Amino acid sequence: MLTIKDSVHDHIEVGGVAEALLDTPEMQRLRHIKQLGTVQLVYPSANHTRFEHSLGVYHLANRVLSHLGIEGVLAERIRAAALLHDVGHGPYSHNIEALTHRHTGKYHDDVAELLASGRVGDVLREHDLDPAAVADLVAGEGQYGQLVSGELDVDRMDYLVRDAHHTGVPYGTIDTGRLVRELTFVDGQLVLDEGNVQTAESLLLARALMNPTVYQHHVARLSKAMLRRASERLLEEPDISADQLRRMDDHDLLASLRMTGRTTELARRLDERDLYKRGVWAEREDVPDDVLDLPHEEIREIERDVANDVGVEPDSVIIDVPAEPSMKESSSRVMVNGDVRRLDRQSPLVNALRTAQRQQWRLGVYAPGDVADDVGEAAVDALGLDIEGALVNYVRTGHRTTLDQFE
Amino acid sequence: MLTIKDSVHDHIEVGGVAEALLDTPEMQRLRHIKQLGTVQLVYPSANHTRFEHSLGVYHLANRVLSHLGIEGVLAERIRAAALLHDVGHGPYSHNIEALTHRHTGKYHDDVAELLASGRVGDVLREHDLDPAAVADLVAGEGQYGQLVSGELDVDRMDYLVRDAHHTGVPYGTIDTGRLVRELTFVDGQLVLDEGNVQTAESLLLARALMNPTVYQHHVARLSKAMLRRASERLLEEPDISADQLRRMDDHDLLASLRMTGRTTELARRLDERDLYKRGVWAEREDVPDDVLDLPHEEIREIERDVANDVGVEPDSVIIDVPAEPSMKESSSRVMVNGDVRRLDRQSPLVNALRTAQRQQWRLGVYAPGDVADDVGEAAVDALGLDIEGALVNYVRTGHRTTLDQFE
Amino acid sequence: MLTIKDSVHDHIEVGGVAEALLDTPEMQRLRHIKQLGTVQLVYPSANHTRFEHSLGVYHLANRVLSHLGIEGVLAERIRAAALLHDVGHGPYSHNIEALTHRHTGKYHDDVAELLASGRVGDVLREHDLDPAAVADLVAGEGQYGQLVSGELDVDRMDYLVRDAHHTGVPYGTIDTGRLVRELTFVDGQLVLDEGNVQTAESLLLARALMNPTVYQHHVARLSKAMLRRASERLLEEPDISADQLRRMDDHDLLASLRMTGRTTELARRLDERDLYKRGVWAEREDVPDDVLDLPHEEIREIERDVANDVGVEPDSVIIDVPAEPSMKESSSRVMVNGDVRRLDRQSPLVNALRTAQRQQWRLGVYAPGDVADDVGEAAVDALGLDIEGALVNYVRTGHRTTLDQFE
Amino acid sequence: MLTIKDSVHDHIEVGGVAEALLDTPEMQRLRHIKQLGTVQLVYPSANHTRFEHSLGVYHLANRVLSHLGIEGVLAERIRAAALLHDVGHGPYSHNIEALTHRHTGKYHDDVAELLASGRVGDVLREHDLDPAAVADLVAGEGQYGQLVSGELDVDRMDYLVRDAHHTGVPYGTIDTGRLVRELTFVDGQLVLDEGNVQTAESLLLARALMNPTVYQHHVARLSKAMLRRASERLLEEPDISADQLRRMDDHDLLASLRMTGRTTELARRLDERDLYKRGVWAEREDVPDDVLDLPHEEIREIERDVANDVGVEPDSVIIDVPAEPSMKESSSRVMVNGDVRRLDRQSPLVNALRTAQRQQWRLGVYAPGDVADDVGEAAVDALGLDIEGALVNYVRTGHRTTLDQFE
Repeated sequence: MLTIKDSVHDHIEVGGVAEALLDTPEMQRLRHIKQLGTVQLVYPSANHTRFEHSLGVYHLANRVLSHLGIEGVLAERIRAAALLHDVGHGPYSHNIEALTHRHTGKYHDDVAELLASGRVGDVLREHDLDPAAVADLVAGEGQYGQLVSGELDVDRMDYLVRDAHHTGVPYGTIDTGRLVRELTFVDGQLVLDEGNVQTAESLLLARALMNPTVYQHHVARLSKAMLRRASERLLEEPDISADQLRRMDDHDLLASLRMTGRTTELARRLDERDLYKRGVWAEREDVPDDVLDLPHEEIREIERDVANDVGVEPDSVIIDVPAEPSMKESSSRVMVNGDVRRLDRQSPLVNALRTAQRQQWRLGVYAPGDVADDVGEAAVDALGLDIEGALVNYVRTGHRTTLDQFE
Repeated sequence: MLTIKDSVHDHIEVGGVAEALLDTPEMQRLRHIKQLGTVQLVYPSANHTRFEHSLGVYHLANRVLSHLGIEGVLAERIRAAALLHDVGHGPYSHNIEALTHRHTGKYHDDVAELLASGRVGDVLREHDLDPAAVADLVAGEGQYGQLVSGELDVDRMDYLVRDAHHTGVPYGTIDTGRLVRELTFVDGQLVLDEGNVQTAESLLLARALMNPTVYQHHVARLSKAMLRRASERLLEEPDISADQLRRMDDHDLLASLRMTGRTTELARRLDERDLYKRGVWAEREDVPDDVLDLPHEEIREIERDVANDVGVEPDSVIIDVPAEPSMKESSSRVMVNGDVRRLDRQSPLVNALRTAQRQQWRLGVYAPGDVADDVGEAAVDALGLDIEGALVNYVRTGHRTTLDQFE
Repeated sequence: MLTIKDSVHDHIEVGGVAEALLDTPEMQRLRHIKQLGTVQLVYPSANHTRFEHSLGVYHLANRVLSHLGIEGVLAERIRAAALLHDVGHGPYSHNIEALTHRHTGKYHDDVAELLASGRVGDVLREHDLDPAAVADLVAGEGQYGQLVSGELDVDRMDYLVRDAHHTGVPYGTIDTGRLVRELTFVDGQLVLDEGNVQTAESLLLARALMNPTVYQHHVARLSKAMLRRASERLLEEPDISADQLRRMDDHDLLASLRMTGRTTELARRLDERDLYKRGVWAEREDVPDDVLDLPHEEIREIERDVANDVGVEPDSVIIDVPAEPSMKESSSRVMVNGDVRRLDRQSPLVNALRTAQRQQWRLGVYAPGDVADDVGEAAVDALGLDIEGALVNYVRTGHRTTLDQFE
Repeated sequence: MLTIKDSVHDHIEVGGVAEALLDTPEMQRLRHIKQLGTVQLVYPSANHTRFEHSLGVYHLANRVLSHLGIEGVLAERIRAAALLHDVGHGPYSHNIEALTHRHTGKYHDDVAELLASGRVGDVLREHDLDPAAVADLVAGEGQYGQLVSGELDVDRMDYLVRDAHHTGVPYGTIDTGRLVRELTFVDGQLVLDEGNVQTAESLLLARALMNPTVYQHHVARLSKAMLRRASERLLEEPDISADQLRRMDDHDLLASLRMTGRTTELARRLDERDLYKRGVWAEREDVPDDVLDLPHEEIREIERDVANDVGVEPDSVIIDVPAEPSMKESSSRVMVNGDVRRLDRQSPLVNALRTAQRQQWRLGVYAPGDVADDVGEAAVDALGLDIEGALVNYVRTGHRTTLDQFE
């Protein structure tokens, strides 16, 4: 049993299969993948990694297991899944996931393969654990998969608190101790026990406050889009496959971008925080529905057309169409007067937050500062946006500089 | 200029009129009035006082003044009002306010009189400040009164953070630094600057989470009702006037309750946390509208009837009908695309939170444990509540004990 | 099993005998005794109570028991002792202990009697625990008494962290998690395991930093001396015995002081923070050795002589001679290369800290501000202090006011 | 004026020359250099960067300037120096400093050159600041250089608190607010004002506790030595100069080590935390004095001899001889009774801490786990260490694994 000091949970005790897993290259690699990717360009202190987050998730899983009285092989399997749940992440976490995903197929298959092979597979088998069963838990399958990946999972509990701690934002603070203590299984469903409607709401609200302030901050989105563009270029190099890209860590990716001819300029911009500017920042109601369904290749086509129109390099135009907001936490379940109820059936906040998230949704078009206005106008036409003077209405101009965190 | 160490704001620098005011008996008295009264029976660490809160409010006022560039006499007047804003509080803060209020008339007149007399009045005049003008600010009057008592006031910013810190509850955490920095006056109205809809919402949400968890926790309400009942008895003593009661601090009140024949039993119960139990805990929809409008004396009459029915002492029955929830923060104002907008016109959360607060509203009937069920049944009849088996539906029984904090 | 939210340890789970003990009047009384007494006049946030501290000590004891694998009756006995360890405290904690002690004999006998009688005795016996055995643990007797009252006890671990948290001073921060995990018994002695010399030193250093900043702050000492003087007067009243005084809580004591003719003036001064001033603040080397050994009555005699000399009331002169500093933590034991070593044999810091504490030692003479200088001069003569111009050398004058925290 | 959120100081306001400097590539590069280098292998949360530290130092400098009333060009020069003070750091901070230093000459000349050239030089001159004067401040020269680099500098204040925050270790907590407020200049010397002997001691003690726990933790030293060894190999490559090495960031260095044939194995070991083990861990008294003075090349020679003896690759033996401990904080100055006194003349703690640090000093010999014992024995002979059974006496074996943090 070893003890690791963590800035969020203080001392974390690690034993059994988890202790052995920690020493695998696959787990150690997570030390070099930032939890929040380009959010660091908005919140300079947000340099925490998937490694410490994985330890935190393991720690909370351990506390839930002890609370629920789950022991033996099942407990070890859940502990392994908690620790390993992010082992399939590519460099810069979710930032380029869409990209590696697009080229390589199902993420979950990939995780299953990862867990079955290499040192991780060896360690699991040495501890009489079936890698496929662990992968199922990571994918949220079965009754106990809800603990690792579900509406009330320990992943969520750790990252909300950890991301708040490291950004310095006071909004992600939830009462993990209470959440852990109130979890229970009813008919195979993971629910919060009687008297916890507010506990469930607090999880939802923490997320609702973190989204616009941290996760969807426009500078984080903008720099993430630039990183994705650069990585896309990298994948066009003859000697780099999506599979290789996915196995890189942050160092490999940045070094590759710096050294590869077609990506040095984007790498320089990211390194020096010399970011593109917003040419369009459009609300949901001003965007035709079909734009949301455009496949990636057609978006790329429009980007090239716009670039052509304005007379700039194709890479200088980025159209960023986020998915419509989901709120997984809204379907969490709580006991109310003896019945299991879905939170969105019980709490008037859920619909309101859905509306709020829809209000916060923005389509962005980004380009180098000197052509951002022109690119914006051309993109408004090309996408058929229902706005005039998008720049006046939707982007505040001027009096804050690039490090501005909250606008 | 002196420096005071505070557990919330670290170092607080005090100078000018505030430094002189600190040494008055009226301010020092606040050292002996707990900020949260009987909440201490739920959260044992919640022993902070009106004194440290007043210092915190002064500190935040100072930061707002410096941010807004307000100086000179106006600034000193606002500082004095911030420091003195709670000087009129009776013992146990808001817990028995209704009582002293009912007997003595307008709270604000009382404050105005307090500020004009005694050492406080002397100090204000010595610093060329008009006590009446300071009292107006405390009452939230005029443009600058909004800073001291309004939807976006520094009072609220301090107590949310301070109450969270001392209860240990993680929900009151707001970003005071950001709130202070984003305040501005537009046409005499205090508003949050452009880009702060979420900032305003966060204030509202902090309050929405603190209400059920802390301020309206049923044990806090129950013990507050018992304290109020005991104080009411105390006022029936020939030698104690409402005015005297209001000038007591927590020590005086407790000592008086312990020493006065008719209140010793209630005092003992509060001292030993041997509290009444809930006989009814009814939702809003089950309470006839006219019950909410019953004047205090008629409620007292019903209590006596119920006590008579069940055959217990009149003081053994307490009917606790809270006011319908208000949400002052919902009318705070934010700049949106150049216009001042009320938050409840802008944010879908406001209505949802109103609904949520209405859902959390409960009418309580309390009595000693051994007669709570009987009293509950009699009260259901007497109040015409539309419930059957109130105890089964609304009160969880048994498996948690008196210190249970959240149920 | 109930869960209590604590501002220091977050959630504290209470079960078994501890849960039953919590509901006794003797434990609930501790809600009304401040942990740090008059320190609140220096650090306005320091209003935490013996009740929350006792819960914290119980919580840490629980963690140590679980770490050491101690279970059953022995564990329950230790838990009871941890929770009850302060139940014998008089009002204002240690502030008037010397006084009640002087009049009533041994503190530990008193505790043994307390634990055997009343509701506490009933509860202990109902749980098959021998009150006398629990009292022995509280007194630090036997192998397991070291956990409750010794150089490495959980009392110390809780109060250092808690006092730091509530004063806002950053110095008491120790790593309780590590301390708990590294405790072990070797030949019946409680020691820190191999590799923990610095852990033991950190406990000592936390104490060394808290002493001058908090516990021995001159304003805390001065107001404590005034409170003791007032309580001494109170004891001269025909109807108040030392035994009664000891059973009061803070409210009773303050109310009594305010209502008793001979103590109203001192009570007013304490209430309004209108404190005496220092007339002498002498270093150890300037105080003849025999002054340190003077019995209380002779000190009182000298005070009266000085008062007579200067022509003031006898109560206006307070001579405050602290004991020579001890450092219990210095004899804590640590494993070093397989041997048990006393920390003061191992660490060069111990002697240095002893010297530092001796340097910080001060004899104080206090009196009302207008006569403090005269009283000081007379006291220098009467005590035979080897100083000239004590006021110039030892007391900084003027530019800080009464709330000044650190000078 | 822009506002940046920091996890330590909350909001940091940046304006003037600092705002312009933030956008230079030289400053942005610090985002990619970890503050504590390989300490991350001991404390997984310690991923904070030189960038956020530099912002923190700037912030504290700003507060000191405002406290001291320093304005105008001098203030801007000090602000620039505070922000830029680490701009000359190579990758992995101090970890390979000795190396780049050894090959490239004076660090301070390098900084002066850096500040005069590139975008930083442009920005300084655009703001009418002389790069050479700023470089002097960074080097601690002149009266105001003491604020940036001296015994009481803002660098130290930031890193103690920040390193504690991110490691999770509770020991670095100092009262920065008090330190800032008590600084003053007396005859051109930066001193702490009257009444602050303990304040100065607290700085020293924070350092004394952080040293063994964090900065000199044996795993941090061991991995740092491995990184240095690998970087040394890298410098032997024909196409990499010390100058290039010094301008890399962490990503460049790790990527280069991974890609360069002679360093891939060491890179793999660092990546996978498959570290060397200690073969010797010798106390100061067992090490002949002349070993401490051996020039780098002779140490390298002995390493090769030992490797030869044992029959392993030369890179498999690392001898790590730390400098004798210094304690810069011990010569800080404090006002005592009107005189400026050096802390080590005033406080008995300074000498004790010096002795303690000497006791903690260790010479390490590291090698791959399977040959560590043999290498240890050969090194004991080669270095003439006065120990027998070094492994038994000085290294605890077995029961803790590689992640063990404190041993």
